[in-house]
Amino acid sequence: MSNTPVDITRLDASAEGFRERLDSMLAWEGVSDDAVVSIVTEVIREVRRRGDEALVEYSNRFDRLDVTDMEQLSIGADRFKQAYEGLPEGQREALRVAAQRIRDYHQRQLQESWQYRESDGTLLGQQVTAMDRVGIYVPGGKAAYPSSVLMNALPAKVAGVAEIIMVVPTPAGEVNELVLAAAYQSGVDRVFTIGGAQAVAALAYGTQSVPRVDKIVGPGNIYVATAKRMVFGQVGIDMIAGPSEILVVCDGQTNPDWIAMDLFSQAEHDEDAQSILVSTDEEFLDRVQASIEKLLPTMERAEIIRTSLESRGMLIKVCDREQALEVTNRIAPEHLELSVENPESWAREVRHAGAIFMGRYTAEALGDYCAGPNHVLPTSSTARFSSPLGVYDFQKRSSLIQFSAEGASEMGKVASVLARGEGLTAHARSAEYRIRK
Amino acid sequence: MSNTPVDITRLDASAEGFRERLDSMLAWEGVSDDAVVSIVTEVIREVRRRGDEALVEYSNRFDRLDVTDMEQLSIGADRFKQAYEGLPEGQREALRVAAQRIRDYHQRQLQESWQYRESDGTLLGQQVTAMDRVGIYVPGGKAAYPSSVLMNALPAKVAGVAEIIMVVPTPAGEVNELVLAAAYQSGVDRVFTIGGAQAVAALAYGTQSVPRVDKIVGPGNIYVATAKRMVFGQVGIDMIAGPSEILVVCDGQTNPDWIAMDLFSQAEHDEDAQSILVSTDEEFLDRVQASIEKLLPTMERAEIIRTSLESRGMLIKVCDREQALEVTNRIAPEHLELSVENPESWAREVRHAGAIFMGRYTAEALGDYCAGPNHVLPTSSTARFSSPLGVYDFQKRSSLIQFSAEGASEMGKVASVLARGEGLTAHARSAEYRIRK
Repeated sequence: MSNTPVDITRLDASAEGFRERLDSMLAWEGVSDDAVVSIVTEVIREVRRRGDEALVEYSNRFDRLDVTDMEQLSIGADRFKQAYEGLPEGQREALRVAAQRIRDYHQRQLQESWQYRESDGTLLGQQVTAMDRVGIYVPGGKAAYPSSVLMNALPAKVAGVAEIIMVVPTPAGEVNELVLAAAYQSGVDRVFTIGGAQAVAALAYGTQSVPRVDKIVGPGNIYVATAKRMVFGQVGIDMIAGPSEILVVCDGQTNPDWIAMDLFSQAEHDEDAQSILVSTDEEFLDRVQASIEKLLPTMERAEIIRTSLESRGMLIKVCDREQALEVTNRIAPEHLELSVENPESWAREVRHAGAIFMGRYTAEALGDYCAGPNHVLPTSSTARFSSPLGVYDFQKRSSLIQFSAEGASEMGKVASVLARGEGLTAHARSAEYRIRK
Repeated sequence: MSNTPVDITRLDASAEGFRERLDSMLAWEGVSDDAVVSIVTEVIREVRRRGDEALVEYSNRFDRLDVTDMEQLSIGADRFKQAYEGLPEGQREALRVAAQRIRDYHQRQLQESWQYRESDGTLLGQQVTAMDRVGIYVPGGKAAYPSSVLMNALPAKVAGVAEIIMVVPTPAGEVNELVLAAAYQSGVDRVFTIGGAQAVAALAYGTQSVPRVDKIVGPGNIYVATAKRMVFGQVGIDMIAGPSEILVVCDGQTNPDWIAMDLFSQAEHDEDAQSILVSTDEEFLDRVQASIEKLLPTMERAEIIRTSLESRGMLIKVCDREQALEVTNRIAPEHLELSVENPESWAREVRHAGAIFMGRYTAEALGDYCAGPNHVLPTSSTARFSSPLGVYDFQKRSSLIQFSAEGASEMGKVASVLARGEGLTAHARSAEYRIRK
């Protein structure tokens, strides 16, 4: 392992050219190259055409298995109960507590149907219903995270989705017991041990064994992301996630070791992860840098952390609170840690962020597991227009309209004028039939 | 014009093979062929690279214009006020009433921030904010619908979006006064007379003149739809719409002329539009067919209506209410007209529909203009997983988490166990720092 100092980019928000430097450090485009697109296109076509047969073939090829039918790629509910019961007490309890807190928080996101009547008796409203069936993609092998199962499945469960199908590849046959235990805790109904573009295609279109779902959520590699983008429209999908990021804003009064470790906790995800610290206190940036040097050699994933910090990390000096908030809203971070006095007043001025962790005690890592809110959050500045995964992602709405005879007559006149203005005379006449003579 | 009988597909839901027939009639895939993809890819690349210069070039080429700079492709707020004031009184009033009703309904969709405290002082919640800037795409020429401006812009306005940018191409220089008037009524801030993939690219990435937006909504042709799909992730987009459809469920007690005209009002949109009638009363299907024959020759868009009805229309006989609802939920229609006694009890059993029009007086056309709910609705069975365009499409959420010292200490233990189970030790140590010794 390298022992040279960690070379993190230092920026001053008041310096000339800061905006351009910041933009270029933030820039990220998850591009599917032509080779990926062409493989995924073929996989989807084959799964649509040959169903289970194609799933078995691709699983053998891509996951280095040797199975002959879908029976061998299915896991029943009794098997994941067994996984849960086989866990050490401490893990079982931690999973249970996390699931309970996630459930409690998401319960508050449930949306209700509503309706109202106008004075002439016309009724307007919105009927909210849950999706029938949802598919959860869980990456296999090393990146199989049980917390990700909880975070994707529980909001669907709270929404009232009738059936939750999970897919998780088992490269070389390796099954992750914690993942199955999390499936048990989340009320997943069925698990197929398939992955990649073939699993996405199976969920989107259905095969003899895998039922077609209404929405697919969950993270995956570039093949999975490309497949999700391609089936979008046939089914719903969640956001296509980029690398994870954190922005820590600190007034210089938090223990620099804590802040360094918070930055590490993003950086350890992968080399493309991004950790940024913003402070009005230049000396504090030095102290955190010193903590980074001190603590890095003690980390299991030191090389990943170093690469991430050196290629995408930033320590940014700002002149005041206003500039700190300006930089924050420009970055629109996935995770925002406000390690400052009176963080609530700061939070009110944050316009774009996936999740806001307020105060010195609120390590972002708590939010990854058991705070309650979802850890599936908008990355790469997409918090400008999107939200954490939530119960609302598994509910949908139907408008309700019931005109009284009087209302239809009055509004028929308005609709008629507008429809004729658009040259749509069948629309106009349909409305005019309901005008009282 | 042809005078042969209108040849609409008749199906019986109890007949063998019904499900397959229905599925094949419903099948729709909006495929962007390679030629479209390659043109759109180039247009996006050029607009990103050359900005305004590329916009001017493409607008001259595709919209048959002869302009030299973006000044000539911009319309200021005073110009659309003038358009509004220049309308005949009847149209102005109709626009005003429609806008007011749409505003009133959408006001009820506004979501509020919320938070709660746990017994140890830990705060959890969700902060709801509006997007900063939104782009509305409005098709040009014949398909430029003022109602579409109202339906796309007003929810953004109600959400509190600070700036609304509209783009509308003006093929051969043709400006639609009603569209500008609707922009005025909806509080649109700026209009650029650009269209196609170049307009989508400009809104997604920004140019010297066109500011980058956070989300792009509004219908368009295959170039626009392909471009939206490509920029998805860089900006938010609404659903990619397929052809419009209506499913009318009738108990046989509504005037068959009314029902025929309701079917026409979908069919007149374009040849791919789909109109379906479901009834338990076979004789009623005959009566509606007779009304269709009688009324078709009187319609301005008779040829479009005929083609649509003959290629995609259906008259479906069902045996009872239960089967009618089963077929309805299978179709998951964009527009559902429940032309029956006691429609409210039916509506409660509808699981998937964009908008539900209840009772004999509630012509779908009223919903297109002035009922209040949005007319941008999920097509092609996507009501299984998506919703009408609404205020919620222009709001986004940030999770709020503030642990008390005690809460952080307790939850730090849980997070530590789970993080170590996932092999993420920086996460674990970040949480452990906050555990009280």
